[in-house]
Amino acid sequence: MPPEPMPICPPMSGENGPKTATGLSPTNGGNGTYSYYENSYYQRIAAKFEYQKINDEISEKFNIENVLSLSRTVRIADLGCATGPNTFINMQNIMEAIKHKHKTLNPNSSTALEFQVFFNDLVTNDFNTLFASLPKDKDYFAAGVPGSFRGQIFPESSLHFVYTSHSLHWLSKLPAELEEEDSPAWNKGRVHYTSAPDGVVEAYKSQFSKEMEKFLEARAKELVGGGMLVMIFSGAPKEMHLSSTANGAMLDFMASILMEMVQEGMIKESQVDSFNLPLYNSATPEEIKGLVERNGCFSIERLELSTPSSWLENPIDIAAWMMHVRAAMEGSFIKHFGSSEVVDQVFTRLTKKHLDHSQMLQTWCNQKVQLFVVLKRSN
Amino acid sequence: MPPEPMPICPPMSGENGPKTATGLSPTNGGNGTYSYYENSYYQRIAAKFEYQKINDEISEKFNIENVLSLSRTVRIADLGCATGPNTFINMQNIMEAIKHKHKTLNPNSSTALEFQVFFNDLVTNDFNTLFASLPKDKDYFAAGVPGSFRGQIFPESSLHFVYTSHSLHWLSKLPAELEEEDSPAWNKGRVHYTSAPDGVVEAYKSQFSKEMEKFLEARAKELVGGGMLVMIFSGAPKEMHLSSTANGAMLDFMASILMEMVQEGMIKESQVDSFNLPLYNSATPEEIKGLVERNGCFSIERLELSTPSSWLENPIDIAAWMMHVRAAMEGSFIKHFGSSEVVDQVFTRLTKKHLDHSQMLQTWCNQKVQLFVVLKRSN
Repeated sequence: MPPEPMPICPPMSGENGPKTATGLSPTNGGNGTYSYYENSYYQRIAAKFEYQKINDEISEKFNIENVLSLSRTVRIADLGCATGPNTFINMQNIMEAIKHKHKTLNPNSSTALEFQVFFNDLVTNDFNTLFASLPKDKDYFAAGVPGSFRGQIFPESSLHFVYTSHSLHWLSKLPAELEEEDSPAWNKGRVHYTSAPDGVVEAYKSQFSKEMEKFLEARAKELVGGGMLVMIFSGAPKEMHLSSTANGAMLDFMASILMEMVQEGMIKESQVDSFNLPLYNSATPEEIKGLVERNGCFSIERLELSTPSSWLENPIDIAAWMMHVRAAMEGSFIKHFGSSEVVDQVFTRLTKKHLDHSQMLQTWCNQKVQLFVVLKRSN
Repeated sequence: MPPEPMPICPPMSGENGPKTATGLSPTNGGNGTYSYYENSYYQRIAAKFEYQKINDEISEKFNIENVLSLSRTVRIADLGCATGPNTFINMQNIMEAIKHKHKTLNPNSSTALEFQVFFNDLVTNDFNTLFASLPKDKDYFAAGVPGSFRGQIFPESSLHFVYTSHSLHWLSKLPAELEEEDSPAWNKGRVHYTSAPDGVVEAYKSQFSKEMEKFLEARAKELVGGGMLVMIFSGAPKEMHLSSTANGAMLDFMASILMEMVQEGMIKESQVDSFNLPLYNSATPEEIKGLVERNGCFSIERLELSTPSSWLENPIDIAAWMMHVRAAMEGSFIKHFGSSEVVDQVFTRLTKKHLDHSQMLQTWCNQKVQLFVVLKRSN
């Protein structure tokens, strides 16, 4: 059984959704009780936490005059946008920063910029909810783009600014070795590489590298020279043990809860052994630097770890937090375990486990577990 | 009571969906029994009927070299695309024709064209079904664009080719006069301007003109100079009486069925008086020519009426045809009458009425009731 450290910070609940053996599971659609739409304000606050940095980067380094050729249309994409409303707020911030820079550089220009915003997520994402909640007073042209951002999804040199938050830590598929019972990566009794043997950790790490390579290759094609790529996702300092972070702890909790349910006969042990979350939430700055350099098409403008949870009130609202985890993750559980009773049990027990340890929740809130990366496409 | 002539041809069931007093009703979503997805092959065949003409127009007049500046990406849009699958087939045909022309002009070129296809429909359209049914082997970049095509929905000069079929005859809203009981356009006992007094006809005609003006204004902004606009929608020769066409007849049937149901006490007469379908299905070539000339931004490359139903087998499968009508129109009935029992009754009786007159069905099948229009954006 894995250890049970205390979870604190908001979950790494990404917009591009986790995957199970049978395919990718999107975040919960619609706008009901367990929907991502109603349960994503932690991600919103965590993303807002980076606004000033994004604005600074645009102001200092995004050369809109050089980037736009023969047109006044700026094309922006949010990759892994989910169902809203976070994506609308994030896109608006970027547009305002670009407009501000344009206005500052051209105080007397009567030519306003025009924006086309592309909202991307997996084809299984609830785009109907996304489109229905587009701001009524938006002053941009909106488009939805279904498909995995690990491949090219836009024409070459067609985007000026790409943003992605809380998505890149989700793997598009589990490492194949995890499904082989005689492999060193067979992850018995766990749901993740937290607290797992080296073989499991290596399998995840290698899968993440492969997917990040594909991601960077695709963006290198789609971005114009001078175009900017902002990536916000889960990471960790090199020296940090994942099991001593809030998110690692939560993943260990999930494993121990499932094993309890095995002992109570609710599910089979083999079901737990074969269940793993496709989440790589401990990328280090060094790892990302290496991948970007290997790609060779981008300059690194900013690469740092930040503390996304320092704004959390005390005491933390554990019930709300658990709703966030559920909105982002229950799809994976439902696909694997089938029964909604099992899924209800998992999340009820998960809430209880967090409540049991609530006094210690604040301890890990200043951990630097969010990567903030700004790249620029070379000309 | 309106007369009851014989209906023959497939319905004018447009992709951009009819509207009722409370807002626009999209075609039926999903892929169930009454879905547009499963009940739209008449529109598909009617659109295919025009493929050769589209291919000829592209081959002779679409100057891809001049239209594309500094890029190999061709941007195409289908306005009023519904949920598929028709839109995929129509877009593929256009792409193949453009590729063919490019290859013919540049036999030795190794630069392949790249395509970005924008699928547009109302925000209430079922984009989830559309995206889920995108062809697996598609060789273009797909995007969904929610919003009314009566306004600008793309950045300026961003599209090279725009296509719209079976949508433009749907009005985005009913003429306001139809809702005033003391107006000459008060349409007592009818659901459409077929067989109606001049005041009603004029109100519809004027609404269509206003909406077509807005449509052309928006496309003039979005298309690059030399860009092409293909429009396929319902029309009629100047001299033809709408009530002597299959579609006019069907609309008269609907009115008489609703009045029967009033007499049986199932609905109130006032409900019928206030119910009108926002459909203008008798635009003449002269009318369209006038509107295009007034806009002033396009040259007319082709403008003609064709017979979309000449391919219909004999005897016509009335049950299938009624499913098409239902997939496209029941949203309007549900919104206005509320009860699904009423809607079931309407379509059951409509089928019966058509079956009762089945021997005469073939008579009107060679009527020229489909407009085929090709415009080119002036440079």
